[in-house]
Amino acid sequence: MKAARIYGKQDIRIEDVEIPEPKDDQVQIKVKFVGICGSDIHMYAEGLSLPYEKNPLTGKTVPIIEGHEFSGQIVKVGQDVKNVKVGDRIAVEPILSCGHCRNCMKGLYNYCLNAVGPDGSGNFIGVSGDGGMAEYANVEAKFAHKLPDEMGFDLGALAEPTAVAYEGIKRSGLIEGQTVAVMGAGPIGLCTAILAKIAGATKVYISDVSDVRLAKAKEVGIENTLNPTKDDVVKKIHEDLPDGVDISFECAGVQATFDTAAQITTATGVIQVDALFGKSIDLDINGAIMKGHNIHTTLGYENAFPIVIQIINSNQETFKKMITKKIPLNETVEGIKSLQNDKSQVKVMISPEM
Amino acid sequence: MKAARIYGKQDIRIEDVEIPEPKDDQVQIKVKFVGICGSDIHMYAEGLSLPYEKNPLTGKTVPIIEGHEFSGQIVKVGQDVKNVKVGDRIAVEPILSCGHCRNCMKGLYNYCLNAVGPDGSGNFIGVSGDGGMAEYANVEAKFAHKLPDEMGFDLGALAEPTAVAYEGIKRSGLIEGQTVAVMGAGPIGLCTAILAKIAGATKVYISDVSDVRLAKAKEVGIENTLNPTKDDVVKKIHEDLPDGVDISFECAGVQATFDTAAQITTATGVIQVDALFGKSIDLDINGAIMKGHNIHTTLGYENAFPIVIQIINSNQETFKKMITKKIPLNETVEGIKSLQNDKSQVKVMISPEM
Ligand SMILES: NC(=O)c1ccc[n+]([C@@H]2O[C@H](COP(=O)([O-])OP(=O)(O)OC[C@H]3O[C@@H](n4cnc5c(N)ncnc54)[C@H](O)[C@@H]3O)[C@@H](O)[C@H]2O)c1
Ligand SMILES: NC(=O)c1ccc[n+]([C@@H]2O[C@H](COP(=O)([O-])OP(=O)(O)OC[C@H]3O[C@@H](n4cnc5c(N)ncnc54)[C@H](O)[C@@H]3O)[C@@H](O)[C@H]2O)c1
Ligand SMILES: [Zn+2]
Ligand SMILES: [Zn+2]
Ligand SMILES: [Zn+2]
Ligand SMILES: [Zn+2]
Repeated sequence: MKAARIYGKQDIRIEDVEIPEPKDDQVQIKVKFVGICGSDIHMYAEGLSLPYEKNPLTGKTVPIIEGHEFSGQIVKVGQDVKNVKVGDRIAVEPILSCGHCRNCMKGLYNYCLNAVGPDGSGNFIGVSGDGGMAEYANVEAKFAHKLPDEMGFDLGALAEPTAVAYEGIKRSGLIEGQTVAVMGAGPIGLCTAILAKIAGATKVYISDVSDVRLAKAKEVGIENTLNPTKDDVVKKIHEDLPDGVDISFECAGVQATFDTAAQITTATGVIQVDALFGKSIDLDINGAIMKGHNIHTTLGYENAFPIVIQIINSNQETFKKMITKKIPLNETVEGIKSLQNDKSQVKVMISPEM
Repeated sequence: MKAARIYGKQDIRIEDVEIPEPKDDQVQIKVKFVGICGSDIHMYAEGLSLPYEKNPLTGKTVPIIEGHEFSGQIVKVGQDVKNVKVGDRIAVEPILSCGHCRNCMKGLYNYCLNAVGPDGSGNFIGVSGDGGMAEYANVEAKFAHKLPDEMGFDLGALAEPTAVAYEGIKRSGLIEGQTVAVMGAGPIGLCTAILAKIAGATKVYISDVSDVRLAKAKEVGIENTLNPTKDDVVKKIHEDLPDGVDISFECAGVQATFDTAAQITTATGVIQVDALFGKSIDLDINGAIMKGHNIHTTLGYENAFPIVIQIINSNQETFKKMITKKIPLNETVEGIKSLQNDKSQVKVMISPEM
C-alpha cells in the first residue's frame, strides 16, 4: 500500500509498504480521511517527538507512518474483536496505552505510564507508531469508534482535534451561562469556541493575531473576535463584563496570551491551558492568588470520542466549515507547507482514495 | 484603651487610644487573644501592605491597630445587630468587604472589588483598618462567629489561620482516601496537614528545611516528615507511592518547593497554592500539561469560619499544640521577633488581659 513515512526532519517519503495483519485485538481499516495537525508540522519542520530510538511500547523506530486524525472503514478484524465488525465506519482514537498500568486502570489512559514518548508526552499512533497517512491502518478495536450513518468520513477525521478541545472544556468545568474567552483561533481554539457555545456559554470571545483566522471564527458563529495587534483585548472584555470572563482557554501557547488570560479571568475563574508552549512561562503567582485563579491543563482525551462524535454529528454544518482543503496522499508535504504558510487553511485533509 | 499601633516599618507603638463606639451593624468586643501571623512580621519588618494613603473602604491611614487573628467577648452591640448579643464569646473573621459588589454578591467576599488593598490584595482588619491588638475592637456583626462554650478563646484565635488552610483544602477538592504532600511546616502548612488527616487523607507528607518545625509536625500527628536538605523528597515519596500524591499543598512559597510539588503530584492531580511568593515563578507549563496538573490558588476564606470553629472544637488537643507562647500586649514587638528568630515558635498569642 501507499504510505507517507517520516524519516526525520523535513524527510517525508511516499512509499510502497506491506500491509501488516491486524493483531487479535486490532481491526484493519481502509483509511478514508486523515487530517494534518500542528504536531505533524512540528514533526516535519523540526523532526520533533519522533522515535529515533526504539519506542518502549510499540517497539518502532523511524521511519513511521504519520497521521493521528483519521477515519476509515473496517476491512478485517482480529479474532478477539467483538465491539465492531467488517464494514463499520469508524473514527480512530489514536492513543497508545498499555491498558494495565495505574493510570490506565483509573481511566487516565492518556497518561499511561508505559507509553511515555521521548519528550515526556503520551504516545500517539502516527507519532510513536504507525498512523493513518496510508491506504490501510491497523488500530486497537477499543479505540475504533463507530460513526453515525449520516456523518461523513471527513467529519469523522475531525473527531480527534475536537476531542482535544472537548477535553479542555470538560476539565475547565464550564457550565451553561458562563462567559468564555479563547486565546488563539487555530483548529483547537476554534473547536473550543464552538464547543463552548454548544455547552451554553452566553458570551464567547476569541482572540488571534491573524484576521484570516478571526474571519473563520465569525464563519463558524463566534461573533466576538479580537485582534491584540489592533484591539485592547483586556479593556474590550472588561467593557462588556466588568469582572471578566469565567473561563479563559489558552489555545495559542505564548506568554502574551497567558498574561492576557490572567488579566481577563474573573476572581476564582479558571485558566484552562490546552496549548503546548515553546518554553516555560513566567507565572505571576501572587497575582493569581489575589484573584483565586485556577490553572487547569489537559493532554489528549479520555473516554471522549463517543460523545464528541455525537456533538459533531448534531452540528455538521458548523464543523464542515473547519475543513478548508482535501488533497491526495502524495501531496502530503504540500499540504503541510500550505498550513505553514497560509492562515486561511484550518484543517487540511488527506484522502488516500483521491 | 491600650493598643499596638503600627506607624510604618519597624515602628509599632503601644499607646493609649480612645475606644470608638460600634456602628449600627457592629459589635464591640473585649479582646481575649490575638495571634501573631507571618504577615504581621512582614508589616513590621518591611512595612508591607500598610495604608500609607487613605484606604478607600475604611478611610484609614497609618497608624492602625495590628492583629487579624483574634477572639473576644461582646460588650456592646450596634442597634441593627441580631445574630449575636452582649456576653457572647466569638472569633472574628477579619475581612473587610463592601457587601454589595459583584464578588460579594457571589459569596466571594474575600475578592471584594471595593476592598482592594495597596498591593492588590483583599482588605483585612488589622492590615487596612484597625484590628485586634488592643483591649477592645469593633467588628461587623456578620463576621462575629460564636464559639462553643467548651472551646477556649485561645483556640478561637486559631480559627483565622485554620480557615486559610481549610479554604485551601476546600479548593483542592480533597476527598477521603487521597494522598497529600504539604510543602512547608509553618502554621499554614501544619494546619493544612492536620485538616487533611481529619478529611480522611490516607497518607500525609510534610516537608520543611527546619527540623524543629518537623518535630512540631510529628507532635500534631503528622508522621511522614521530610527535610529536603537531607532527604530526596521526590524519591522518598515515589518509593511509597509510585505515581505520586493526589494533591500537593504549597505552603512554603519558594521556587524549590513549587518544583518539588510538580514532581511528586500524580497525573491529573492538584497543586494547591496557599503560599504567597516573593516573586513570580518559572512554570514548566508543558511539564504540567504532560501530567494534566491543575494549579489551584486561594486567598483568605469565605463562609468557612463556622465550619472551622467546629473542627477545632472537635480536635482541641491537636490544635492546642499549635500555640507555643502567650504574651502580654506590651510585649508585641518581642513576640514578633521571637517568631522571626526561633523556628520552635509556631503561634504566639497576645493577651491584652495579661
Ligand atoms: N493539550 C493537548 O493535548 C493538545 C493537543 C493538540 C494541540 N495542542 C496544542 O494546542 C495549541 C493550539 O493548536 P492549534 O492546532 O490550534 O495551533 P495553531 O498554531 O494553528 O493555532 C494557534 C493560534 O494562535 C494564534 N496566536 C499566536 N500568537 C497569538 C497572540 N499573541 N494572540 C492571539 N493569538 C495568537 C496564531 O495566530 C494561531 O492562529 C498548540 O500549542 C498545540 O500544540 C495541545
Ligand atoms: N493564601 C492566603 O490567604 C494566605 C494566608 C495566610 C498566609 N499565606 C501564606 O502562606 C505561606 C505560609 O504561611 P506560614 O505562616 O505558615 O509561613 P511560615 O514562614 O511560618 O512557614 C513557611 C515554612 O516553609 C519552610 N520552607 C522554606 N523553604 C523551604 C523549602 N525549600 N522546603 C521546605 N520548606 C521550606 C520554612 O522553614 C517555614 O517553616 C506564606 O507564604 C504566607 O504568606 C497565605
Ligand atoms: Zn493533532
Ligand atoms: Zn498504561
Ligand atoms: Zn494571618
Ligand atoms: Zn464587595
